[in-house]
Amino acid sequence: MKDLASQSPLTLARAAVPALNALRADAVTALAGRVAESDVDAEQYAAHSVAWIATYTEALVQMADWAAKLDSDGMMGEMEELILAIALGEYAAQLAGGLPMSQGEMARLSDLGLTLPGEVAALTGLNTDAARKRLVELMVERKGIASFGATGLDDEYEMIREQFRRFADDKVVPYAHEWHLKDELIPMEIIEEMSELGVFGLTIPEEHGGFGMSKTAMCVVSEELSRGYIGVGSLGTRSEIAAELIICGGTDAQKAEWLPKLASGETLPTAVFTEPNTGSDLGALKTRAFQDGDDWVIRGNKTWITHGGRTDLMTVLARTVPDTDNYAGLSMFLAPKTRGTDAEPFPDATISGGEIEVLGYRGMKEYTLALDDHRVGGEALLGGKEGQGFRQLMRTFESARIQTAARAIGVAQNALEISMDYALDRTAFGAPLIEKPRVYSKLAMMAVEIMVARQLTYFSAREKDAERRCDLEAGMAKLLGARVAWAAADNGVQIHGGNGFAMEYPISRVLCDARILSIFEGAAEIQAHVIARRLLDTRQG
Amino acid sequence: MKDLASQSPLTLARAAVPALNALRADAVTALAGRVAESDVDAEQYAAHSVAWIATYTEALVQMADWAAKLDSDGMMGEMEELILAIALGEYAAQLAGGLPMSQGEMARLSDLGLTLPGEVAALTGLNTDAARKRLVELMVERKGIASFGATGLDDEYEMIREQFRRFADDKVVPYAHEWHLKDELIPMEIIEEMSELGVFGLTIPEEHGGFGMSKTAMCVVSEELSRGYIGVGSLGTRSEIAAELIICGGTDAQKAEWLPKLASGETLPTAVFTEPNTGSDLGALKTRAFQDGDDWVIRGNKTWITHGGRTDLMTVLARTVPDTDNYAGLSMFLAPKTRGTDAEPFPDATISGGEIEVLGYRGMKEYTLALDDHRVGGEALLGGKEGQGFRQLMRTFESARIQTAARAIGVAQNALEISMDYALDRTAFGAPLIEKPRVYSKLAMMAVEIMVARQLTYFSAREKDAERRCDLEAGMAKLLGARVAWAAADNGVQIHGGNGFAMEYPISRVLCDARILSIFEGAAEIQAHVIARRLLDTRQG
Ligand SMILES: Cc1cc2nc3c(=O)[nH]c(=O)nc-3n(C[C@H](O)[C@H](O)[C@H](O)COP(=O)(O)OP(=O)(O)OC[C@H]3O[C@@H](n4cnc5c(N)ncnc54)[C@H](O)[C@@H]3O)c2cc1C
Ligand SMILES: Cc1cc2nc3c(=O)[nH]c(=O)nc-3n(C[C@H](O)[C@H](O)[C@H](O)COP(=O)(O)OP(=O)(O)OC[C@H]3O[C@@H](n4cnc5c(N)ncnc54)[C@H](O)[C@@H]3O)c2cc1C
Ligand SMILES: CC(C)(COP(=O)(O)OP(=O)(O)OC[C@H]1O[C@@H](n2cnc3c(N)ncnc32)[C@H](O)[C@@H]1OP(=O)(O)O)[C@@H](O)C(=O)NCCC(=O)NCCS
Ligand SMILES: CC(C)(COP(=O)(O)OP(=O)(O)OC[C@H]1O[C@@H](n2cnc3c(N)ncnc32)[C@H](O)[C@@H]1OP(=O)(O)O)[C@@H](O)C(=O)NCCC(=O)NCCS
Repeated sequence: MKDLASQSPLTLARAAVPALNALRADAVTALAGRVAESDVDAEQYAAHSVAWIATYTEALVQMADWAAKLDSDGMMGEMEELILAIALGEYAAQLAGGLPMSQGEMARLSDLGLTLPGEVAALTGLNTDAARKRLVELMVERKGIASFGATGLDDEYEMIREQFRRFADDKVVPYAHEWHLKDELIPMEIIEEMSELGVFGLTIPEEHGGFGMSKTAMCVVSEELSRGYIGVGSLGTRSEIAAELIICGGTDAQKAEWLPKLASGETLPTAVFTEPNTGSDLGALKTRAFQDGDDWVIRGNKTWITHGGRTDLMTVLARTVPDTDNYAGLSMFLAPKTRGTDAEPFPDATISGGEIEVLGYRGMKEYTLALDDHRVGGEALLGGKEGQGFRQLMRTFESARIQTAARAIGVAQNALEISMDYALDRTAFGAPLIEKPRVYSKLAMMAVEIMVARQLTYFSAREKDAERRCDLEAGMAKLLGARVAWAAADNGVQIHGGNGFAMEYPISRVLCDARILSIFEGAAEIQAHVIARRLLDTRQG
Repeated sequence: MKDLASQSPLTLARAAVPALNALRADAVTALAGRVAESDVDAEQYAAHSVAWIATYTEALVQMADWAAKLDSDGMMGEMEELILAIALGEYAAQLAGGLPMSQGEMARLSDLGLTLPGEVAALTGLNTDAARKRLVELMVERKGIASFGATGLDDEYEMIREQFRRFADDKVVPYAHEWHLKDELIPMEIIEEMSELGVFGLTIPEEHGGFGMSKTAMCVVSEELSRGYIGVGSLGTRSEIAAELIICGGTDAQKAEWLPKLASGETLPTAVFTEPNTGSDLGALKTRAFQDGDDWVIRGNKTWITHGGRTDLMTVLARTVPDTDNYAGLSMFLAPKTRGTDAEPFPDATISGGEIEVLGYRGMKEYTLALDDHRVGGEALLGGKEGQGFRQLMRTFESARIQTAARAIGVAQNALEISMDYALDRTAFGAPLIEKPRVYSKLAMMAVEIMVARQLTYFSAREKDAERRCDLEAGMAKLLGARVAWAAADNGVQIHGGNGFAMEYPISRVLCDARILSIFEGAAEIQAHVIARRLLDTRQG
């Protein structure tokens, strides 16, 4: 590795940062030019290409920052240097030649009339077979550690990580696959233990019974729980959504009423937004809420409601302003419901629903949900104001998407660990699989992309903590994280050969689980849309 | 489309063919140079990159041939021209900038020290948003036709296609998803109807009770049956393997005994090669066959045996030459067994087995299979000669891989048709999904890649019919076809949004079914290995 060290990826990375930022600006300018001549919907492919390109440039900038920090902390070891080099090399080469927005849709600078700046082009040779091989050797030596490569987070976070990694190893990993195969709800004891560990109150302010921790802490916890099982790592998503809605938009009374109960896990919430005909285009939803005296009466059909049964509080987005058909007429409700069970998910007379059988992401179950004049008190209207629901939700989605990016990292890490173990054990053509270049290359790319997605996710978490609007950054983290998890699961299955296709092997579940990440919490195309629009909106000059 | 027509993709394609062939030769030369300095295993990433690059150049050459033939037949319409243009544009751009060997592993000319020849670079702009949009408009106009774009096959083949498409629509499509969800065996009535239609005797010579048709016919039938359901399209694979083994390597007595029964579907065979510790590296397998008087006694553990239960004849690869550990000691047996049922899959005392639960590719079921001194007569040894089993099988795999490439095309076509219907029906943001660029781009790329995989598959079928060794061409068709099917299914799910994740929607099954194609019949890495080695072996100069 002398050779690589002498090229100093950190120096190259530092030198490339201004060029990366310039490239992003040029891409946005090119897009703005096109949109001015046509319209943004007609230029969608170009707009999404720019969103992805900007995601890559930001990812590389964050990797450079990460490396600089490690370097100044004296934490830059061989493993970190290799991860940096491969990440720079691969992402720069994809910027140069085309990056996959999906399997089949490539984003290319050339289609935008752009070329790669020299400082970025200088990185393109850094992802070598030798680097991938050496990285995996080091990974094998350090098998069992929580992260391949220092995360760059302070020790306090790494202690949290260790704690939740242990919890997942003890209480989740041994059972997750069975929960999945039997399509069972995650046992209440697990949820109770998570409550005790503070999962549900992590980011809720201390004055409201939470721990007042940062979004970064939420990421670390979500990663480790999701590494154990995506379902366990996703229990907190709903609490995060409900708490964020209330913290950002609730009245003092709503805060006092709900936040302590959400923090303690006493109240388990469910997010009730999507409708059978309306998913991405939430602004068009049709569920109505009518005022009746002081009360509100909610009527409509929702679907895809995760953990709809065994929960106590619905955050329902509904239309209160008649004769509107866009987001301006929507309001958010904190609508109590009676907690159900697997056998009887909806005990309330005004709520009915049916289970939707799913490929993966089990453990909480998804339901269709009909609200048949479900009555709530006047205090249920979030913030006491009508017409704010959509904007309240959009701000909240920033957190939810950061949390989802962290879930994706956990799922990818799970795929990596399982597949590395398999590749060490399994022999073909006289040697362990892990010694074959096409096998260790897959493992190396998983580890590298996990770190890239991590740094982008932590960056978006810091933006959120700084109370800056960050749908741009959260969207990038979610967009990339979901692809990284899917690629890791896909390649993990491939490493398993035929056994990857057997339901008995956990990697088959991880494949199914990983697929959801590009669909929910804003599908990949919706994230690209959000990113592109924000890039245009916040464009300098 | 005036603009595009004036660029004449056909002219560009024709002009690029010599350059494509030269590029392939240069890539092989570059590889040979590396391998000479190191060894082929250490240079695996480069070798597989060359295999993929050669697959792309061959695919483009075949597309050029296809277009030239259509042109001279007066069959080159707007749709064909668009498919050609997009295929040329996209594959040339991927050759220029990097092509995905898997999600995460890119093959790049630059890593081999090569650059794209000018005539190929001239194609890179042809995959435009306008072309994709127009292609999908035409696809919508012609919804329901069996192939988007003329296949280039003679009418005789298209009549066969129509016949099997009707059969699939009537007898398979309405039930396939239920068979999958209930994990049921495909009903015997379907198999009987397929027997009557001649599926199992298609390529068996007429003198042995078959139809003596070409491998191209086998492809067309396999495509259409697999479009209905991969399980139905895969019933014939086992018959193809057994019949090929016997036609190429059997004694006259073996031909007389088995071929008519295989052709009529009276005998259903199962392929018994893989072992728990040995899949890709079949040459190392451990199952033994001992001579006992005139008989052979087979002892060992096999696994992943598709349709192991409800079949009458096993083609078993076993080691007969003691003290060998490579392919030279292997022999092939035509080992009769008693046909089992779902409830009692293995009635013979010397055969036992257990079902392996799988993600997809259901309908025949996979089993572990223990042969506990299973006794067969001396006439069971294929060709009456020991030590030939592996080579006999390798020749047979050529056909099996061509057939598998055709299955992949059928699966991809299914994904395309289902997803196009969905995108027409489903509305978001005030318009059908199909009008969104990111949706029609996905559909366009499916249609284009299906045609590319088709032409490569038909090419390999013609090579086989010409009785030329074609593990190279068959490997290319299988390698690319599997990726195309997986991409189509993946993007099909994405188009379905949340519903793609619901087991109720057939696309969720197609995703699972498609995943097998890069694993079995020689995993993607094994195909790349076979291709690279053949490229080196057959290198001119
Ligand atoms: C397992 C699971 C759990 C879920 N849990 C919840 C939950 O707890 N609560 C809740 O409210 N919802 C939940 N959802 C719903 C989820 O948020 C939606 O599925 C998602 O937002 C996508 O909406 P849709 O399914 O209606 O897809 P659609 O909006 O119909 O989109 C279909 C496809 O078209 C694309 N598309 C849409 N519009 C455009 C456009 N303008 N341009 C280009 N492409 C476009 C999309 O990206 C997608 O690929 C869940 C879904 C699943 C599958
Ligand atoms: C649903 C299903 C049906 C099947 N049906 C049958 C059947 O009917 N009859 C039958 O005999 N078999 C059958 N198989 C077995 C199938 O052919 C094998 O699974 C396949 O050949 C791969 O072998 P393996 O599973 O042992 O993987 P392995 O050989 O262990 O390979 C695992 C991974 O390592 C890679 N790899 C292996 N060697 C190398 C190398 N040297 N360099 C780089 N990478 C390498 C592989 O490409 C793969 O990605 C079936 C399998 C499945 C899943
Ligand atoms: C598609 C989508 C991005 C909305 O697009 P849209 O309908 O074009 O709406 P806009 O982006 O124009 O936003 C509407 C309003 O919200 C505001 N808004 C949007 N995002 C915001 C954010 N992150 N912070 C603050 N305000 C925000 C906008 O500024 C605008 O307000 P204004 O009119 O006062 O300026 C949104 O519907 C979405 O995220 N869909 C995916 C649904 C999803 O994730 N579901 C998961 C369910 S679990
Ligand atoms: C990996 C694999 C390609 C073999 O590689 P290998 O062990 O290096 O063996 P070789 O390629 O050297 O071939 C061994 C012999 O077979 C011959 N052979 C290989 N392919 C051949 C073909 N298509 N036609 C004729 N002969 C062939 C070789 O020439 C060689 O014979 P020789 O020594 O007399 O020259 C093979 O094991 C394989 O295809 N594995 C995948 C298994 C599979 O597809 N399973 C599906 C089960 S349903």
